[in-house]
Amino acid sequence: MGAGFGGLKAAKALARVPVDVTVIDRNNYHCFQPLLYQVATAALSPADIAWPIRGILRRQPNAIVLMETVTGIDVEKRLVHTHSVTVPYDYLVLATGAMHSYFGHDEWAAAAPGLKRIEDATQIRRRILQAFEKAELTDGPVERRRLLTFVVVGGGPTGVEMAGAIAEVARQTLPPEFRHIDPRSSRIILLEAGPRLLSTFPEDLSAYVRRVLIRMGVEVLTSTAVTGCDARGVDSSNGRIDAGTIVWAAGVVASPAAEWIRASRDRAGRIEVGPDLSVPGRPEIFAIGDTAAVIDGEGKQVPGIAPAAKQMGRYAAQIIAAQVAGRKLPPFTYRHHGDLATVGRKAAVVRLAHLHLTGFIGWLFWGISHIYFLIGLRNRFVVAFSWLWNYLTFQRSARLITGWEADAMDEARPR
Amino acid sequence: MGAGFGGLKAAKALARVPVDVTVIDRNNYHCFQPLLYQVATAALSPADIAWPIRGILRRQPNAIVLMETVTGIDVEKRLVHTHSVTVPYDYLVLATGAMHSYFGHDEWAAAAPGLKRIEDATQIRRRILQAFEKAELTDGPVERRRLLTFVVVGGGPTGVEMAGAIAEVARQTLPPEFRHIDPRSSRIILLEAGPRLLSTFPEDLSAYVRRVLIRMGVEVLTSTAVTGCDARGVDSSNGRIDAGTIVWAAGVVASPAAEWIRASRDRAGRIEVGPDLSVPGRPEIFAIGDTAAVIDGEGKQVPGIAPAAKQMGRYAAQIIAAQVAGRKLPPFTYRHHGDLATVGRKAAVVRLAHLHLTGFIGWLFWGISHIYFLIGLRNRFVVAFSWLWNYLTFQRSARLITGWEADAMDEARPR
Repeated sequence: MGAGFGGLKAAKALARVPVDVTVIDRNNYHCFQPLLYQVATAALSPADIAWPIRGILRRQPNAIVLMETVTGIDVEKRLVHTHSVTVPYDYLVLATGAMHSYFGHDEWAAAAPGLKRIEDATQIRRRILQAFEKAELTDGPVERRRLLTFVVVGGGPTGVEMAGAIAEVARQTLPPEFRHIDPRSSRIILLEAGPRLLSTFPEDLSAYVRRVLIRMGVEVLTSTAVTGCDARGVDSSNGRIDAGTIVWAAGVVASPAAEWIRASRDRAGRIEVGPDLSVPGRPEIFAIGDTAAVIDGEGKQVPGIAPAAKQMGRYAAQIIAAQVAGRKLPPFTYRHHGDLATVGRKAAVVRLAHLHLTGFIGWLFWGISHIYFLIGLRNRFVVAFSWLWNYLTFQRSARLITGWEADAMDEARPR
Repeated sequence: MGAGFGGLKAAKALARVPVDVTVIDRNNYHCFQPLLYQVATAALSPADIAWPIRGILRRQPNAIVLMETVTGIDVEKRLVHTHSVTVPYDYLVLATGAMHSYFGHDEWAAAAPGLKRIEDATQIRRRILQAFEKAELTDGPVERRRLLTFVVVGGGPTGVEMAGAIAEVARQTLPPEFRHIDPRSSRIILLEAGPRLLSTFPEDLSAYVRRVLIRMGVEVLTSTAVTGCDARGVDSSNGRIDAGTIVWAAGVVASPAAEWIRASRDRAGRIEVGPDLSVPGRPEIFAIGDTAAVIDGEGKQVPGIAPAAKQMGRYAAQIIAAQVAGRKLPPFTYRHHGDLATVGRKAAVVRLAHLHLTGFIGWLFWGISHIYFLIGLRNRFVVAFSWLWNYLTFQRSARLITGWEADAMDEARPR
């Protein structure tokens, strides 16, 4: 269940195993989440970073794809319930990913959307571009200043990438195009509750990223926790910030998969699995990716990043194949290849083992590896072309405000 | 007002005239409508055929762009009212385009969306792709047949293009990807109330298009009028057709611009203008494009197509420039260059003066001229690349179902 990095890898790795594979996802596409922030800042279109799941699995005869939403699981009878069909299973792989956590304040979600799905990204894109449009039409200087203030909550890779990209939009792409406002006067504020950005990265790379962001005109407030979010701004431990746009990149919590199977879970809702990724007491049920809390065979805690999900997906397929053939496998071992984050058009940080890359070299490495990991030759061409174009022209390729009527409905609808 | 083909051309043609130009459009982008059907059939992304108006006018110092919706016009005081600002004018160019007409049955709009805006195209795309997804999950053969039936209403260029593209999706793109259904068994039905398709084209080209569509597996029902549309199908003069998806390409009516200025209008709501495109009795107000009903200086009725809108836009700018300089101009004369319509990946019809082109040559001509008329070098590259890719691989580049949660809201919302 789920066709993100983990689920898709598991399905593909079962291609030559004598089993039938049913992939259930509520969307018809697989989304390359690391580049969602580029859709959110109008640099890429949704179709550049997503591919229909059926398209990916079209040449795999033992795979069926169902576009449906899971409503529950009967672990005794081994059935998956959806709105329209019930699917029996012998083995179940839960790869339903994560959602945003608002630390118990789900009411903040309407004011501060996260960035996990394509619709999140187009909604954020719409809010960012509309902020400038509304400011152009606004007389009052206080309201104009509020509209031109953007707050990003969370100093991990997603927050850093969003803050840098919004700064580029405001300082480079838009300035020649407005007559009543100067987009360069925008405030972009990045809030991080901990003492430094990119807390999972080495300290020197954290410090580098902070310097680059400040040079791009982003205000970086570390050791600053958010205490409230509303339609007009945020409350923080450093005071009130009136803002027109808030992006939430702070906390993740697992999908409700744990509830469906009534398994034990950790504080972030992730299913606690054994070293073979199976649920304790249920050797036929596996959980992988952001849905699972894993301590691997070497005692390492596995991070919630895409490469880890893919490794877990492959292992889950191997364990199922082994069980079908009556063999056993050693426990799952996670191999951490490195960390990447980008901070704008010419700077990224890369950590590979003991090698740290920064600046333009880092950005080239980041760009090439992301293109490599995209699915589909066409998408690789288009993304590479779009980046080259945007780089040379300082333009952004996907600056559409669409769906604003739906947004008006959103504002009226309770969440 | 309005930044479609007519309004944008008028704005750009005023670049060197000593006036201030204010462009008001409720969207932030200019959309290349002739290719909307490709967004609706998942071959292109919205951003491939749209460009932000500010981006187009960024190097024109006398142009201001306001993203707003017009609520009314005070013709005595020469003011344009919007939700947030009021804009005074000396000259007013109404270029607000057209909407779909349901011949007095606006309640059909929810079941049978038209194809005028980007949101129309993504909604139709969603419905088409979801029809196959739901059919894959459906057991009952009657319901499955209904879901795999697609009806296009209207045999003009838009209807012909949509019917041909849906046939390609069903017969070429999707078949290897489904296990429970065979998309090739879909019914695609094109309904036209008149005796032949493409009624404004020469008869031989009409007949050619009919033959090609039938060869592609489209059922062409001419002399068949629609008498009712609902969520489960259409009623026609040829009987009831149960369908999962209905696309409306049948009638257009002008935007409400005529009401705003209380001008006389024709049956389709278009403002009846004089041979200099001005509103009778109001020499400072001009109407162009689909908003206007024009008999030109040679007595020809001007059709509602993109090249005509652009010619009218340029003329409106020239007349304003002439009035500012105290000169006079001869009346507007429309020059018809030809007609184009495409019927699928390898066939199009082109009429230039007395030259008729069909088949692959016609398609090449159609493709090259559409790429030429796109705005923006990047879009030209990406569309050309996407078409080449789709052509070689039989794939379609933008097969995402997005915004389905909004659709669920749509179904609940009264129209």
